Amino acid sequence: MTKIGFVGVGKIGQTIAYSIVMDGLANEAVFYDIVPEVGEKFEHEMRHAVTTRGLNVEMLGTTNIDDINNYDIIVITAGKPRKEGMSRRDLFADNAKLMFELSKQLPNRNPGALYIMVTNPVDMMASVFQKYSKQFTISTGDQVETMRMRSYIAKKLKVPVTQVNGFVGGEHGEDAVIFWSTVTVKGKPIEQYNIDKKEVEEYVKKIPAEIIRVLKGTTWGPATIIKDIVRSVVKNENRVMSIAVPNEFEGEMIHVGIPTVVGASIGPTLESTLSEKDRESFNAALRDFHKTFKELMSQVQLTA
Amino acid sequence: MTKIGFVGVGKIGQTIAYSIVMDGLANEAVFYDIVPEVGEKFEHEMRHAVTTRGLNVEMLGTTNIDDINNYDIIVITAGKPRKEGMSRRDLFADNAKLMFELSKQLPNRNPGALYIMVTNPVDMMASVFQKYSKQFTISTGDQVETMRMRSYIAKKLKVPVTQVNGFVGGEHGEDAVIFWSTVTVKGKPIEQYNIDKKEVEEYVKKIPAEIIRVLKGTTWGPATIIKDIVRSVVKNENRVMSIAVPNEFEGEMIHVGIPTVVGASIGPTLESTLSEKDRESFNAALRDFHKTFKELMSQVQLTA
Amino acid sequence: MTKIGFVGVGKIGQTIAYSIVMDGLANEAVFYDIVPEVGEKFEHEMRHAVTTRGLNVEMLGTTNIDDINNYDIIVITAGKPRKEGMSRRDLFADNAKLMFELSKQLPNRNPGALYIMVTNPVDMMASVFQKYSKQFTISTGDQVETMRMRSYIAKKLKVPVTQVNGFVGGEHGEDAVIFWSTVTVKGKPIEQYNIDKKEVEEYVKKIPAEIIRVLKGTTWGPATIIKDIVRSVVKNENRVMSIAVPNEFEGEMIHVGIPTVVGASIGPTLESTLSEKDRESFNAALRDFHKTFKELMSQVQLTA
Amino acid sequence: MTKIGFVGVGKIGQTIAYSIVMDGLANEAVFYDIVPEVGEKFEHEMRHAVTTRGLNVEMLGTTNIDDINNYDIIVITAGKPRKEGMSRRDLFADNAKLMFELSKQLPNRNPGALYIMVTNPVDMMASVFQKYSKQFTISTGDQVETMRMRSYIAKKLKVPVTQVNGFVGGEHGEDAVIFWSTVTVKGKPIEQYNIDKKEVEEYVKKIPAEIIRVLKGTTWGPATIIKDIVRSVVKNENRVMSIAVPNEFEGEMIHVGIPTVVGASIGPTLESTLSEKDRESFNAALRDFHKTFKELMSQVQLTA
Repeated sequence: MTKIGFVGVGKIGQTIAYSIVMDGLANEAVFYDIVPEVGEKFEHEMRHAVTTRGLNVEMLGTTNIDDINNYDIIVITAGKPRKEGMSRRDLFADNAKLMFELSKQLPNRNPGALYIMVTNPVDMMASVFQKYSKQFTISTGDQVETMRMRSYIAKKLKVPVTQVNGFVGGEHGEDAVIFWSTVTVKGKPIEQYNIDKKEVEEYVKKIPAEIIRVLKGTTWGPATIIKDIVRSVVKNENRVMSIAVPNEFEGEMIHVGIPTVVGASIGPTLESTLSEKDRESFNAALRDFHKTFKELMSQVQLTA
Repeated sequence: MTKIGFVGVGKIGQTIAYSIVMDGLANEAVFYDIVPEVGEKFEHEMRHAVTTRGLNVEMLGTTNIDDINNYDIIVITAGKPRKEGMSRRDLFADNAKLMFELSKQLPNRNPGALYIMVTNPVDMMASVFQKYSKQFTISTGDQVETMRMRSYIAKKLKVPVTQVNGFVGGEHGEDAVIFWSTVTVKGKPIEQYNIDKKEVEEYVKKIPAEIIRVLKGTTWGPATIIKDIVRSVVKNENRVMSIAVPNEFEGEMIHVGIPTVVGASIGPTLESTLSEKDRESFNAALRDFHKTFKELMSQVQLTA
Repeated sequence: MTKIGFVGVGKIGQTIAYSIVMDGLANEAVFYDIVPEVGEKFEHEMRHAVTTRGLNVEMLGTTNIDDINNYDIIVITAGKPRKEGMSRRDLFADNAKLMFELSKQLPNRNPGALYIMVTNPVDMMASVFQKYSKQFTISTGDQVETMRMRSYIAKKLKVPVTQVNGFVGGEHGEDAVIFWSTVTVKGKPIEQYNIDKKEVEEYVKKIPAEIIRVLKGTTWGPATIIKDIVRSVVKNENRVMSIAVPNEFEGEMIHVGIPTVVGASIGPTLESTLSEKDRESFNAALRDFHKTFKELMSQVQLTA
Repeated sequence: MTKIGFVGVGKIGQTIAYSIVMDGLANEAVFYDIVPEVGEKFEHEMRHAVTTRGLNVEMLGTTNIDDINNYDIIVITAGKPRKEGMSRRDLFADNAKLMFELSKQLPNRNPGALYIMVTNPVDMMASVFQKYSKQFTISTGDQVETMRMRSYIAKKLKVPVTQVNGFVGGEHGEDAVIFWSTVTVKGKPIEQYNIDKKEVEEYVKKIPAEIIRVLKGTTWGPATIIKDIVRSVVKNENRVMSIAVPNEFEGEMIHVGIPTVVGASIGPTLESTLSEKDRESFNAALRDFHKTFKELMSQVQLTA
């Protein structure tokens, strides 16, 4: 009996909810959206979809957040989306206010729930939500960048995508860093292959904006990847994924992506197994994140 | 080795392609769209998605229809979509011209391919495409209505969706008819349950416009259902689905939905097993379709 | 919430139960076997298996048939197995007695359950069980022969197994007949291919004894095929499968295999869509079955 | 294109091969067994099974080990099985000889293959095979014990199996140790629950012999778990599993189970994240293993 709530079912929220429900991961699902009828009409679409698949899932579309009641996993996509030309951090102020509100609304009715943040800037929003809710929150971190990196190397080297391994870490977005010490192709270090690392890094940084420019949003890639994070929790698969879990840093719980074991319990991270260089990149990301987070937080007013 | 081509990867085309590729049904896929970069950027999204799932699929996004070369199954969603307030038939003239063009472009390079029509008015477009291409074409027919009918009855009677069976037939859209003699709940005839048939019929007719009004299109339901049609072909599942296959009627091959065995071979239909009343509804639908089709065809000019 | 009971978990029963539970088809499962500890130790094995797969299934191994209580589907494999050199009918007398006993034990506690017979001679055992239990019973019929036929043609013609379609009917076993009018390869009639029909028929008849001689039983093939029958019911897939459903013949309900729609409701059969020749084979099989059934029944004493 | 070879298709080998092929993990599979006709008849069974599932897999049953040619993954189950009353180490001498032979036969034709050892005593056999073949070999280690531990705790505490996490390490078999610092229920340390650790340890140690006594072998549990190890490699899932990878210890490569990241690349292990106590257990297991391995090796004569 797994109950999964979706806070926000706009374009990305719908795609994530669809992927999760269709993979048979939820016995019950609530689709909450502030826009009238969106959750409810999406519920109809989903009812038609589960019928053809022979899945019995209880579903409810709603504009009442109190319908998320006693849920196990809550996936948050609500907020302003990133538009062409915007950086993820441009979204900080507006979305931080929303996270503050949600942090007051969700925890009481959902004791022990796991919160999965998708709203951008995703790591920062996870930290905001955790700060005010005191609930264990993960950010989908760099698992999206991780898959983009692998897919690009596979295409470039003309090898199957299943033969490329390795992780991206640091803050999700423009500052993410490839942990090159973890990258392998057919089980061998990437250094044994003829590939331009700069080119890979460029791809990972720039492809989301390219997709947004043409398709008005990234959906299929992130949704499938986020579904797999949820799957690894629900099925207790213990997959290592580059998500961001709470890290204590100068008294603040902050979220920066690093390969982490994701199952019924989340952690440990694989920090201690990284190369010194990659570990240093991660620590630099923590410091940068903390500094920016404090700055941005000082510019918004979050009160009930 | 199954090669599936997608002609049109707008909103519904992307959703169908995503569902099909993620279900592991294609070894190779081409995403063709006339709009520059759409196919190509969608290819990137799909590459990220298959990487997390560990699927090795060859994929290409393109604006060159000749890249659909030696394909087994071709799913056509190209054309003007149905907008709020429009009927499916409003789309006839523009989309018929497109089907005529495609009928000249696709068959040469794809001998023996199965064509699956999704563009609306879907049954008519299947007939147009088949008329000019001389290729075996199916329309997704009333399988979408079939699932909407089942899902509504399940919700109404508070039974699992997997316990409701039965089919909708006739022309896809406002004229579809529920074949009530086929409808069962927990294996028993629907007549043993307390349900208002009119209400079910209303739901099936009206829910698509309701979804379109709020969500700007129906995607998740139809895409999943169409994916299952493709799955039944590719995996040779022989599922009975209410699709429209070519029927000879007064010398014309026309497409009207009826329960049909869908596998590596398509057919037979289950016409001979229907009640007399349902069989008569099907025959009336054939006659109406044929009359309208001739009228509409006489109003468009299709020449090379 | 699907509850599936297994009556008999010897070699074939375990393989079927494993395939069904691993495919996620049961929320609850009981493994009943008369041999002490067999059901219970199999339960342990299954617990280890579902844990790695992340499946939450309630399971119980038992020697108490009353633990099958309020179940939806009951799969019967109990009875003497077919050994090298034996025909399926050699088993009739012993297994008929067992079916008679089960027909007195199971129905009371499981109202509305679907019974799926696997014990050989399978069609006869379905008829015996239905006769005394008055419960709707299906035999797995010729779906196993159907798959053997397709797999042999695929290997012979070097085409993918998914490209061969068609059905075997008649009584399961030595008397099964290939319904050649239904057999297609790549959607075209088998007559367009160079294949020796006699050879295919020989294969279908003789391969089970060959497997039994070497492997001491047929398990993997039948178990997977029977799992798919159960799947088609549970997921309401409406696959056409060559199973045997009750046919009234001279006042007796008898079971002879014929392509049948298998979903939440079972039927109709596709008898009316067969060629005249294949329909005649089916009718001959009904007559032969009925004659033999009466003879064999007159030789056993079934009383409480 | 993944090619998986099975060396030995007796009871456990068949069950593993079935689970792997049915999960769609192999495009090609060879079933090798020294016993005449066993591989070949198993091939027939598998052909029937894949046909119903709509899987296109090239398969060959053979008694000629040279048919394993250019394979990616080779699963070894050949050798004497453990019978009632025997310890895994009783099997050492006979099976070590077989591994020595295989180490001379397999590597030449299968460059770069991954070897997965299942033959008991499994960790020792992995070390023997790696020693003489110089090929990267993993032992399925304690992943089976890991699942037995979780399933037992789940049943005892009446929580879903998906809510119990944690690992068993050390040498597979009677000397395996539960790494209690890794064990959680609903994400919380096991210490917060009322459970007798000794009882859990007893279960993990004793259940295999119990199953063997009644069912003549453990199959369903181990096969499914080993399938998931193969799946994690083939799909590059990076699941953390308690397998045994080669560890250099006093100049010898030895195999002792420890949580390890299993994907297209195998490793790192999670040794550095264990508690001091669990790390010490692991190191003790390495020392014990090395001592026993040297002793046992000194008692066998392995020459070409």
